[in-house]
Amino acid sequence: MESIKITSALISIYNKTGIDTIVQLLVKNNIKIISTGGTHEYIVSKGIDCIKVEEITAYPSIFSGRVKTIHPLIFGGILYKRKDVTHQQEQNLYQVPAIDLVIVDLYPFSETLKNYPNDHQKIIENIDIGGPSMIRAAAKNYESVLVISSKNQYGYLEELLTKQGGTTTVDQRRHLATEAFEVVKEYDMAIADYFTNAPTKKVLRYGENPHQESVFLGDITRYFKQLHGKELSYNNLVDIDAGISFCTDIEDGFVKNKPFFAILKHTNICGLAIRDTQFVAWQVALSSDPESAFGGIIFTNQIIDLETATNIDTIFFEVLVAKGYTAEALQVLQTKKNRILLSRTTATYQQPKLIKNILGGILEQEADKTNIKEWIEKGGRETNPSEKNDLLLANYVAKHLKSNAIALVKNLQLIGKGCGQTSRIDALKQSIQKAKQFNFSLDGAVLASDAFFPFGDCVAIAHKEGIVAFIEPGGSIRDQETINYCVDNKLSLVITTMRHFKH
Amino acid sequence: MESIKITSALISIYNKTGIDTIVQLLVKNNIKIISTGGTHEYIVSKGIDCIKVEEITAYPSIFSGRVKTIHPLIFGGILYKRKDVTHQQEQNLYQVPAIDLVIVDLYPFSETLKNYPNDHQKIIENIDIGGPSMIRAAAKNYESVLVISSKNQYGYLEELLTKQGGTTTVDQRRHLATEAFEVVKEYDMAIADYFTNAPTKKVLRYGENPHQESVFLGDITRYFKQLHGKELSYNNLVDIDAGISFCTDIEDGFVKNKPFFAILKHTNICGLAIRDTQFVAWQVALSSDPESAFGGIIFTNQIIDLETATNIDTIFFEVLVAKGYTAEALQVLQTKKNRILLSRTTATYQQPKLIKNILGGILEQEADKTNIKEWIEKGGRETNPSEKNDLLLANYVAKHLKSNAIALVKNLQLIGKGCGQTSRIDALKQSIQKAKQFNFSLDGAVLASDAFFPFGDCVAIAHKEGIVAFIEPGGSIRDQETINYCVDNKLSLVITTMRHFKH
Repeated sequence: MESIKITSALISIYNKTGIDTIVQLLVKNNIKIISTGGTHEYIVSKGIDCIKVEEITAYPSIFSGRVKTIHPLIFGGILYKRKDVTHQQEQNLYQVPAIDLVIVDLYPFSETLKNYPNDHQKIIENIDIGGPSMIRAAAKNYESVLVISSKNQYGYLEELLTKQGGTTTVDQRRHLATEAFEVVKEYDMAIADYFTNAPTKKVLRYGENPHQESVFLGDITRYFKQLHGKELSYNNLVDIDAGISFCTDIEDGFVKNKPFFAILKHTNICGLAIRDTQFVAWQVALSSDPESAFGGIIFTNQIIDLETATNIDTIFFEVLVAKGYTAEALQVLQTKKNRILLSRTTATYQQPKLIKNILGGILEQEADKTNIKEWIEKGGRETNPSEKNDLLLANYVAKHLKSNAIALVKNLQLIGKGCGQTSRIDALKQSIQKAKQFNFSLDGAVLASDAFFPFGDCVAIAHKEGIVAFIEPGGSIRDQETINYCVDNKLSLVITTMRHFKH
Repeated sequence: MESIKITSALISIYNKTGIDTIVQLLVKNNIKIISTGGTHEYIVSKGIDCIKVEEITAYPSIFSGRVKTIHPLIFGGILYKRKDVTHQQEQNLYQVPAIDLVIVDLYPFSETLKNYPNDHQKIIENIDIGGPSMIRAAAKNYESVLVISSKNQYGYLEELLTKQGGTTTVDQRRHLATEAFEVVKEYDMAIADYFTNAPTKKVLRYGENPHQESVFLGDITRYFKQLHGKELSYNNLVDIDAGISFCTDIEDGFVKNKPFFAILKHTNICGLAIRDTQFVAWQVALSSDPESAFGGIIFTNQIIDLETATNIDTIFFEVLVAKGYTAEALQVLQTKKNRILLSRTTATYQQPKLIKNILGGILEQEADKTNIKEWIEKGGRETNPSEKNDLLLANYVAKHLKSNAIALVKNLQLIGKGCGQTSRIDALKQSIQKAKQFNFSLDGAVLASDAFFPFGDCVAIAHKEGIVAFIEPGGSIRDQETINYCVDNKLSLVITTMRHFKH
């Protein structure tokens, strides 16, 4: 591997800590030092020879130091290709000094932001322009130039200067170029973040649990306005997101403007009903599973009126997200101090890209935006219109429950659900148990499954309980078992060809 | 709001598309145009007057265009503070031209990378140095300068030039500065990614469901090596992450080197046992819930031997993650084509920061790294050593199950679990049902809950089934009900003061 000897170094550092040893080693290795204002002063004060950038450029540092190193002679000295004949000739003609080592310590943008969060001018002044430009130029030309972009690399540089007498290999230069692009990236991310997010960065009290720190980056008031109650927690935000996502989905595709209520716990829907009036919708949604509703998050597309508010007021819930509240309703609901009351803004909910940090990397995926790809009737009879409505609603619920999930719906009410299960049949059994626990009759109910039935037993078990129509994506190698059972027993079966796992 | 009139514009664009209209509007508004080589040629060819950058700097474009705009007169013209008297004097003295509008279209780094992924030299040459420097300088000085950093903003600029006659407000300039820092950030992220990660970006077949696109960014082989089987799916990766996270947790804090097997489905643990030999550990783990194990992900800290492999081979599973395999074991397991066999690398699993995209923002939190804060005995008797071991193991399981979660353990085997539930009592009932389904006796079993028991009924129900010891964080206002029941019935009760919600 070819080694290159460093002949001259440009040093432009904000913080002078740790540079003494480096400078002494440069001198020891006969490396010429070039530097800017403050750095030059510091090095000279240590009794070491040092060329001022201005001596090379014949330009003063102007505009309070906003422009110092930005000059063709400096950037040419960093960027020219050492092996290119034309570049060599131009270097000679324009007397461009070779700069083989660039040491930069950037203006402390993040530190300034931390220490003077409200001093916008000071923060702006600490956006380094020349520094990142030099780092990027040196990194681009790593074939010939070594770049030190952070004090953390001083030890590495000292080793190179001590053990290799001021020579470096291309692997070493490329390694530092990689780190340099990371340094610049992080620096620019902090600036972009300041410009984009700073006013809306919110430190939460804690994360999913009290021992986990947490922060929300973005505009927390984009989709709702808080009218009353304690500060929103991490878990509240996650539940609210799950709820708004579900509500947007059914509002767009199904409910339109009919009154509905949905109740969530741990991001899962445990109560749901669509009715002609908000009061009835509320009471029927609550009756889906009054036990789970305890401490839950309530959603509705209605402007809550006094009658409904008075009834909601009798139960314990964490958050209520409504289109709005009448003045009397708000007054009733505000009597409990901690209770959180939110009203939706007019912003349309955008399904975000889904990101998980796993296995030391980042896993990204598109949002699950579509509900049904096809509607293929495979059962022993056609689905009737009222069943069709219930099947559609059940399918929305199953899509938004954690997998494995089963949703049972009857007359536009959720009457049972199984979710977060490690086997499909467990999800099914659980949904039936929940329905029975609250004395729902399953006669004429419909069932949605977020993924295929692996065997024919699921529809058989459900049928024995009175369930008459099914919706599922299909795709098991044993689909025919399920189809045969439905045909033989005159049950409706809709295949959507669209799975909805959610974890 | 004060408006500023643009007097001159610097245009330096790689792609000339869409610039014609802009240039005509600049002329119409009496704005002087300055530009570099190719851009200058293009504008002049349209019959429009345009000053060459070289006319201002009196410097040629050198080193094959690597250094063009990098000159104090250009950067000074962008960066000087219009209202600062010293800056005004220096501008006058050095004849620095005011540059009030900067239009840059960067070298197409990402496109080059996409079209010539193997041409490293071409990719390096497409790292723009002058462009980002100008964008950053103009954005820093947004108080006086308007920056157009992307063709996407041409429409916006046209509107400003048409409707406001070449004047702009500070809000408009700051808005474009924000976008400019985003553009530079994205550009530098792509470069840093190329230098650091490019070889390890992996497009997955699809995401959680077939209709969702997905990509993994990072080194997918960091924690495991694939020895056999089909390509890993999104859901495989999520399950593997959950499993390795759980295994690392119990290996570090509990199991040490004793043989264990864990089986996961949909990220939840459904089988687990620690035993003296790997064969027994496997059989006992499988017996926890053989139904859920169907199509599951299996984890072990063992080098799989022939005896165990021959037994594992009889069931249907998706992925096996082991410390390693003997040659004979591998031969047996490889007989099924699709089955995925992985061996762990020596890399230590790092709990990542947890990130969720919700409500139009980003929610970040620390990983849940600790297991137990305190060990406070509050029951009717002290926990005995064997119960203590079972309680610790149950607590690890409950921590890693989706909330609400209950785990039942007996003799270092998981014998029942409830997870992903919307009420605690449902999770409890489910865990008991699962144990009974597979004929486990609950006499002498222990129970862990990921969050507090809200009322005293949970321990009462569990006790009636034979469960004798409990571990939970505590924290309900009704903790005393639970404590009283345990004291009255001589049950062991451990309060950890550490909740473990996981969603």
